[in-house]
Amino acid sequence: MTAVQRLQSELGSIVSVDPAELAATRTDKSGWEAPGMPLALVRATSVSEVQATLRIATEFRIPVVTRGAGTGLAGGACGADRSIVLSVERMNRILEIRPEDELAVVEPGVINQHLNDALAEHGLWFAPDPASKDISTVGGNIATNAGGLLCAKYGVTREAVLALTVVLADGRLLKTGRRTVKGVTGYDLTALLTGSEGTLGVIVEATVRARAVTAGESVTIGAVFPDSGLAAAASALVTASRLRPAVMELIDPVALSMIAAYLGPDRTAGLPIDRGAFLLVQTGGPGALAEAEQAAAVLRAAGGEVRLATNGTGTATAGLVTADRLLAVRRAAHPALAAHGEVLIEDVCVPRSRMAEMFERIREISARTGVPIPTVAHAGDGNLHPNFVIPADPGRPAGDPVVPEAIWAAAGDLFRAALELGGTLTGEHGVGVLKRRWLAEELGDTSFDLQWQIKTVFDPLGILNPGTMFTPVS
Amino acid sequence: MTAVQRLQSELGSIVSVDPAELAATRTDKSGWEAPGMPLALVRATSVSEVQATLRIATEFRIPVVTRGAGTGLAGGACGADRSIVLSVERMNRILEIRPEDELAVVEPGVINQHLNDALAEHGLWFAPDPASKDISTVGGNIATNAGGLLCAKYGVTREAVLALTVVLADGRLLKTGRRTVKGVTGYDLTALLTGSEGTLGVIVEATVRARAVTAGESVTIGAVFPDSGLAAAASALVTASRLRPAVMELIDPVALSMIAAYLGPDRTAGLPIDRGAFLLVQTGGPGALAEAEQAAAVLRAAGGEVRLATNGTGTATAGLVTADRLLAVRRAAHPALAAHGEVLIEDVCVPRSRMAEMFERIREISARTGVPIPTVAHAGDGNLHPNFVIPADPGRPAGDPVVPEAIWAAAGDLFRAALELGGTLTGEHGVGVLKRRWLAEELGDTSFDLQWQIKTVFDPLGILNPGTMFTPVS
Repeated sequence: MTAVQRLQSELGSIVSVDPAELAATRTDKSGWEAPGMPLALVRATSVSEVQATLRIATEFRIPVVTRGAGTGLAGGACGADRSIVLSVERMNRILEIRPEDELAVVEPGVINQHLNDALAEHGLWFAPDPASKDISTVGGNIATNAGGLLCAKYGVTREAVLALTVVLADGRLLKTGRRTVKGVTGYDLTALLTGSEGTLGVIVEATVRARAVTAGESVTIGAVFPDSGLAAAASALVTASRLRPAVMELIDPVALSMIAAYLGPDRTAGLPIDRGAFLLVQTGGPGALAEAEQAAAVLRAAGGEVRLATNGTGTATAGLVTADRLLAVRRAAHPALAAHGEVLIEDVCVPRSRMAEMFERIREISARTGVPIPTVAHAGDGNLHPNFVIPADPGRPAGDPVVPEAIWAAAGDLFRAALELGGTLTGEHGVGVLKRRWLAEELGDTSFDLQWQIKTVFDPLGILNPGTMFTPVS
Repeated sequence: MTAVQRLQSELGSIVSVDPAELAATRTDKSGWEAPGMPLALVRATSVSEVQATLRIATEFRIPVVTRGAGTGLAGGACGADRSIVLSVERMNRILEIRPEDELAVVEPGVINQHLNDALAEHGLWFAPDPASKDISTVGGNIATNAGGLLCAKYGVTREAVLALTVVLADGRLLKTGRRTVKGVTGYDLTALLTGSEGTLGVIVEATVRARAVTAGESVTIGAVFPDSGLAAAASALVTASRLRPAVMELIDPVALSMIAAYLGPDRTAGLPIDRGAFLLVQTGGPGALAEAEQAAAVLRAAGGEVRLATNGTGTATAGLVTADRLLAVRRAAHPALAAHGEVLIEDVCVPRSRMAEMFERIREISARTGVPIPTVAHAGDGNLHPNFVIPADPGRPAGDPVVPEAIWAAAGDLFRAALELGGTLTGEHGVGVLKRRWLAEELGDTSFDLQWQIKTVFDPLGILNPGTMFTPVS
């Protein structure tokens, strides 16, 4: 019997070998496409089906690529050649909500926003908020340690994960963590698995922290600065003033002009986004208005032209500029860029104080390579998304990569600049396939060596998502 | 040359073999005493001295016990027989404070409170707040993933550690983490090392998060309930009302009567602590008074007799009861117990909703064994400290353990009760030597096996704090 026959005989109709379905698993939202073709797609609906899949994979030494909603941006969950793609998308039940303990227990395929909808009935929410939250799964958020807009105030995904149930490469079940706020029994395997990108085990259940919804209004500020460096310096001043807005998003002039063109005059009337760099700030909680007014004063003193708006359609001290219209500018960033071609979204992160320098490095790299690099940033975190827009090329030969090597060379320059400034090559998207070639450079030999040995402890046969995070051994 | 001669020839006067100095390293604040005698005490002042010590230890296969201020409560840093005790207490420099990036870089021997004093000049603070913060080191806080009174609101130590520099067993230097708020390059070795109790490496530098000091007053509530179960239920109701006090401490009737006797009538006048269980609640930040008044209403509705006081010596809605006097009740807990004998402080943690049941189990175990178990709890975290007070016994033969086996049997019953309620045997003190016999019971075989393999990756010769966390292989 072949591996696929064994899967089919043990697992029946949840196993697909339909070529169109297999092909669809080969890509994610990065636009990258795995070469070759997977052997089978298993759509697991239970822990025991995941265990059976892993046992068969171990027996036949077949790679397993675990996949949720396929919204990744680093090629980390794409159906590799001759692999089993293990989809946990149908394991999408919310198993338990414990308002009194402020936690929820979920299967990995639950969509982030669905969990938030369910928690809202109890005055609770799940803080991790990647831009993909309407379409990405909690399991994927955990596997990538996803970030988002609110991390400076509410932390990254790791801080929201209390316990995991994981199927190991050989099919054994591992339970990590606990339901309690505190606990120091043994090593923190929960944190080790969070962000491990499917290379250590398959998350089949997660106990996550739910937060109390903060009472109080939210206040939104839009500010324009002559250039990115001044906007970045202004945002750093907000943090240095010991203010802690929930949101602080920066849009550079290249991206801003594309957004302005995309939104058109009607949707940008009265918004100061026809020039310069844009900074969007949002405060929340009991002291929201006071905090926003302090932040606005800092931004004005730093040379910004500032608009301030209270929640929704109401207005505070400014004219007809509403919070929704300010937020719409940031939301338009990705569609505005995507209207011009395939978008490669990079994801460097630097200490907040070095953000202005990172913008300067991006400008230099863009000037040197002739590649425009429209950039948006989670300024409160120092997390920049420089974007490469690759125009559609109908003459591109089939099988040629979408991202030309010249773009990767420019991206490599970006990563090195981030490292030089004390930063990292990926703030929240993960290493995946697309950044593995730079991993050792950031980690250094000693850390890389230990990480590889830890990988080997969990996955001695090397069947869990090989080629993700670590470069495959040839 | 012996190992000690090699240490002396390479490291000179920082190596002590003075019997009194060696003997002093054999114990910590748990009262436990390691049998036998260490070979040498190395008082490192630099990273290179730590590396040299580890290289020599590796060459001679000598165990190394890393030690900070010796304030541990689980026997995890006690000078074992024929070991090298590596003290990092003199590595006590604050290397860097970056207000704009809200971080500090410190050597491991910096006292927690000293770091806080230095940060206060910048409107910043270091959130981990073990009761020992005036005397314990940041390195020790990290090695044990220390908790404290403020964790429900501000998180545990792990959430405050951004990056570590660690000397590995063979003397190599490992750097983990980064200076940025976000970063997902590779596995989270920073979290793996936090709480690893000296078994994976020696922390020689830490980059820690500093938080902005929250503006606004703080308001303190003292409430008395007929029994611990009602007080625990009331504290759970506060959390379930989506309030998030900074502090919520519960004192059971057994401990409360010892505290009342210890403080005496003058210092307890007007305080309702002559009976029942005491709950201390403190709110802070912009909405502190409103939040305190809501909490007070919840506590009254749950049957509490409530006193409320604003910051320091001022008073709000109640009479002459000040915040300082309410806090003094909690602060007196340990000295009040210690006045009656050696105190073995246990440290179970359960989901908040099971706390009332845990108090009931403690009562049962106390009744069954005839051992009084005065208990205090960080109620916001579900973290209980049941205390065993062992009267001084002048007739105890030298070498006999302070804690009789009957007490350990009662403690074992406590741990199992906590596990049955979905909790853990140690919320914040660590496993150390004193709880290692229960580790496998909590973790289960699969997790224990993986953890042991991870230990082996970092420490293939088994020289790092052997006998701590894991039971020694005999």
